[in-house]
Amino acid sequence: MKKSIITSSLIIIGNEVLSGRTKDINTSTLALWLNTIGIIVKEVRIIPDDELTIIETVNEYRKKFNYVFTTGGIGPTHDDITASSISKAFELNYDFHKEAFSILEKYYKPGEFTEGRQKMAKMPTKANLILNPTSGAPGFYVENVFCLPGVPSILQSMLGGLNNVLAGGEPIISRTLNLLTVESEIAKSLSIVQNQNDDVEIGSYPFFKAGKIGVSIVMRSTSEKKIDECSKQIINFLNEKKIKILKDI
Amino acid sequence: MKKSIITSSLIIIGNEVLSGRTKDINTSTLALWLNTIGIIVKEVRIIPDDELTIIETVNEYRKKFNYVFTTGGIGPTHDDITASSISKAFELNYDFHKEAFSILEKYYKPGEFTEGRQKMAKMPTKANLILNPTSGAPGFYVENVFCLPGVPSILQSMLGGLNNVLAGGEPIISRTLNLLTVESEIAKSLSIVQNQNDDVEIGSYPFFKAGKIGVSIVMRSTSEKKIDECSKQIINFLNEKKIKILKDI
Repeated sequence: MKKSIITSSLIIIGNEVLSGRTKDINTSTLALWLNTIGIIVKEVRIIPDDELTIIETVNEYRKKFNYVFTTGGIGPTHDDITASSISKAFELNYDFHKEAFSILEKYYKPGEFTEGRQKMAKMPTKANLILNPTSGAPGFYVENVFCLPGVPSILQSMLGGLNNVLAGGEPIISRTLNLLTVESEIAKSLSIVQNQNDDVEIGSYPFFKAGKIGVSIVMRSTSEKKIDECSKQIINFLNEKKIKILKDI
Repeated sequence: MKKSIITSSLIIIGNEVLSGRTKDINTSTLALWLNTIGIIVKEVRIIPDDELTIIETVNEYRKKFNYVFTTGGIGPTHDDITASSISKAFELNYDFHKEAFSILEKYYKPGEFTEGRQKMAKMPTKANLILNPTSGAPGFYVENVFCLPGVPSILQSMLGGLNNVLAGGEPIISRTLNLLTVESEIAKSLSIVQNQNDDVEIGSYPFFKAGKIGVSIVMRSTSEKKIDECSKQIINFLNEKKIKILKDI
């Protein structure tokens, strides 16, 4: 995974995540999807609905990573400040976006496109839209910063529209071996295999499921062949140690 | 929530979270618990198993916040590098911790305290331990940085031991109103109430559950009285608008 890696970072915006009330699942959704198009997530930051923090984080990340994705804060209420903050981060005009306004005007019944709803058409006026097949209100992107909603099902429905916009690298492939063992039994051998397989990232994760205690070994690489080779080496030492590989957990 | 706020930040260490394979639930567990002892979470960073990133993040956060909590990377395998990285961040000696070694020696049966397991006793030798009632291997803390495991059930079992170590502020109270409405219907009125209630943080979150579409209004403050007042104002405008409050969702 050393050549031409396309990197990204996520900014999860929302007091509801920092308070513990809402469990963030958008990180997982975005990371799994980005991996399929050859983009890895290098860092995630969960930050409050605070303008200065949003501006600073966006400006730090957009220089540091190929792509930045934000989630949350693009609805109609007072705590939805992502669009205005992004405008400030890029020093762009924040006002009604013509195309977004027109989409929302058509989406709602006559008389229902209220002032509250109109706020969702406000964003950097130069932004490109990310269409929302679920609930009308579009996301948007400016340069390499993509702003998505916080509601997981809506976010998920909008990702397909970005496949042709993002320039990814080789997809990142992942393979898992689930073992009936404990980490300390395999730590040393696994470390040797990792040292011999630079281009495969090997992770080791204990699991406790349905009364079973075990370890999941996860191999990640852009090369299926290199995962094959690495996997072979791991299976070799597992056989020597008589450690059982589970079909599923 | 303006006076003497005790702040914290979390560092979720682990490629498995950044790859999307594992959904982080430790943020929610830690934030909910910290709120009960009057500590708020101001920021969370999810970072890879990378020494330099861990060192830099820890050193940035420990100056910026009253408390820092890390999760993950304290097991026995090659990708568990939190303890050695923390030692470097504080420029402390990384070696066998006497008390931790003794705890683990007693925890395992004779002959089972293998080299792999012994690694879990390695940490900054001056660290204070965080006892682990679930699986033996302790966490540790140095100054204001607390290092916990990544496995959620084990992490959760270790928090009780920290209640007397952390100096919190007033507990943060949270109250929710679940409404049968959409955000744009209440956005303006809610914004007025927020402006009149500085000491209450009001969040608005759409929900879609069991066929119901609604909005949860969450009020957070250290003062129950101020939440009462704020809640009254919100209920007033809900009644005017004839918006229904749900008992549960």
